[in-house]
Amino acid sequence: MISSELQAFYTERERLNEIVMKYAGQGIKRFFSLDGQVYREGALPQKTKELLGLVASLVLRCDDCIKYHLARCFEAEVSDSELEEALAIAVIVGGSITIPHLRRALAFWDKLVGGDVEF
Amino acid sequence: MISSELQAFYTERERLNEIVMKYAGQGIKRFFSLDGQVYREGALPQKTKELLGLVASLVLRCDDCIKYHLARCFEAEVSDSELEEALAIAVIVGGSITIPHLRRALAFWDKLVGGDVEF
Amino acid sequence: MISSELQAFYTERERLNEIVMKYAGQGIKRFFSLDGQVYREGALPQKTKELLGLVASLVLRCDDCIKYHLARCFEAEVSDSELEEALAIAVIVGGSITIPHLRRALAFWDKLVGGDVEF
Amino acid sequence: MISSELQAFYTERERLNEIVMKYAGQGIKRFFSLDGQVYREGALPQKTKELLGLVASLVLRCDDCIKYHLARCFEAEVSDSELEEALAIAVIVGGSITIPHLRRALAFWDKLVGGDVEF
Amino acid sequence: MISSELQAFYTERERLNEIVMKYAGQGIKRFFSLDGQVYREGALPQKTKELLGLVASLVLRCDDCIKYHLARCFEAEVSDSELEEALAIAVIVGGSITIPHLRRALAFWDKLVGGDVEF
Amino acid sequence: MISSELQAFYTERERLNEIVMKYAGQGIKRFFSLDGQVYREGALPQKTKELLGLVASLVLRCDDCIKYHLARCFEAEVSDSELEEALAIAVIVGGSITIPHLRRALAFWDKLVGGDVEF
Repeated sequence: MISSELQAFYTERERLNEIVMKYAGQGIKRFFSLDGQVYREGALPQKTKELLGLVASLVLRCDDCIKYHLARCFEAEVSDSELEEALAIAVIVGGSITIPHLRRALAFWDKLVGGDVEF
Repeated sequence: MISSELQAFYTERERLNEIVMKYAGQGIKRFFSLDGQVYREGALPQKTKELLGLVASLVLRCDDCIKYHLARCFEAEVSDSELEEALAIAVIVGGSITIPHLRRALAFWDKLVGGDVEF
Repeated sequence: MISSELQAFYTERERLNEIVMKYAGQGIKRFFSLDGQVYREGALPQKTKELLGLVASLVLRCDDCIKYHLARCFEAEVSDSELEEALAIAVIVGGSITIPHLRRALAFWDKLVGGDVEF
Repeated sequence: MISSELQAFYTERERLNEIVMKYAGQGIKRFFSLDGQVYREGALPQKTKELLGLVASLVLRCDDCIKYHLARCFEAEVSDSELEEALAIAVIVGGSITIPHLRRALAFWDKLVGGDVEF
Repeated sequence: MISSELQAFYTERERLNEIVMKYAGQGIKRFFSLDGQVYREGALPQKTKELLGLVASLVLRCDDCIKYHLARCFEAEVSDSELEEALAIAVIVGGSITIPHLRRALAFWDKLVGGDVEF
Repeated sequence: MISSELQAFYTERERLNEIVMKYAGQGIKRFFSLDGQVYREGALPQKTKELLGLVASLVLRCDDCIKYHLARCFEAEVSDSELEEALAIAVIVGGSITIPHLRRALAFWDKLVGGDVEF
């Protein structure tokens, strides 16, 4: 069973993506497609790629992107320690301005690992 | 008739501007004035200027600024295609980190063009 | 007596910090500690340091950080004029993209100085 | 005849692109291709699109990108006044932190329009 | 006697400002003027204002802006300790991504205080 | 044998770090120390951590940081394909504004793997 919060996140995301696709021309459509492709397993495992996406999202401070990559990291079975080490790098690179995002990130992760979220 | 959402956006903006002006010295006041002047019709049509403001706001990822310039683009009779092409440039320049803002931008635009908003 | 809004801000911050500490390794813990140390009175008075933190937060556009440093500036007895001059520098350096944050900053400050907040 | 400075800019760009393509997988190749497509004439004239690229580059403060879009604006016959109005918007949105880039941008433009550069 | 490096910095800046003014319309001119006004002594001493400008420049990572405010801090008789404390705040807020700028900042400061620069 | 270019990079870095340490107080010193610690092998392998540092540096667009993490990736025996996939994620997240940095990154990597650099 998927938690209502995560469900709401994905539902809203889906709803908005439909609006994007209503207006999107070829450029935006291709970019959305590319955005999916680069996280696929390749020379680097998918887990590593999701951690790369997460760290990029944290240093650039985008809560939605952070939440999305946290959900993907959870699905890819990233452990608490692996997550913490990746976040530590992001916080050192990005500075204290990232701390509010770190707080929200770990609060979301805490729910994911807390058993009330299932995929 | 103006939609209640857009009305709420402008009302809140106005309320906060009054607080700004309560504290603002000459520097902030002059900057607010300048901020209005640069979007006025000149060698470039106003429509182009609003698109420039919109693209700048999207790559810098400020939802309030995006919403404001979308409303102004709508008033300047920017078409769906013109808007889409400007947003495509912004998304390519700014990357996938701008996508959550693009989603919210097009959801707002969809309401503006949907007929439930009038100026 | 502390206003309910400020109280809510600190309570939520505290709640989230507890989640951070649940997952934090040595790196994140040390960074949080360092983040506290650099604002302590030294060659520069604490008031100046809080203004430095505020300006950095405004140009980097982090509402949570801005709110935190505003509360600290208020505690350090920064006057309205001092605050306004610091914010004017931040707005000129950071541009109109900072204006929505300036609006929210001054709305929060207005409550702090309005007498409904006490420390 | 093309000025030696602009020639050097394009030559270095070309040399580096060859190295990029030596290592690039499908993701990077498709992105480079997309990056070209979004500036093509469509509902918006190419001139407007180059101005959008220029303003995005200035607020994000990338000298190489600014230089590239200035050369393209010049080819698209953007006038001095049109350029100035677009740059004014970028500087107001992005703040004084963009001024060093504005200086270098106009110094490059001055050479382009000065007659020592030909396409 | 002024060091040749600082002299070169100011001379190049002046040369480029002349090019800016050749193209600048009212918007850019007024913004340049505003940019000077906000650092003038007021409720906050000029020294504090230059430190605010410096910290904003470091977290936004603009070497030219950093260099300019360092020169102004030096003229305003900021001490080594005051400077270090301001930079420490900037580095903690902005993270390790600011370190290369910190290195260049202190190398420039070292020359300023080393006696080979005079105003 | 180490290439003269890489040698020059490290030598300049070392020279500047000495100047930093001449002025650094406890805050900056501790931060530099922390900055080293978070990349040490732990739950995540060092190779992954260097890729995380690299992607963070690319999306934040700091050439010095990119160069440093590329050298570290090379020492950690990151393959061309692994590097390319990490850079592809960074470029998609960060957008075309990162392309000039990607170009310089791959030109540097090309030298590292070209056999003219040894550790």
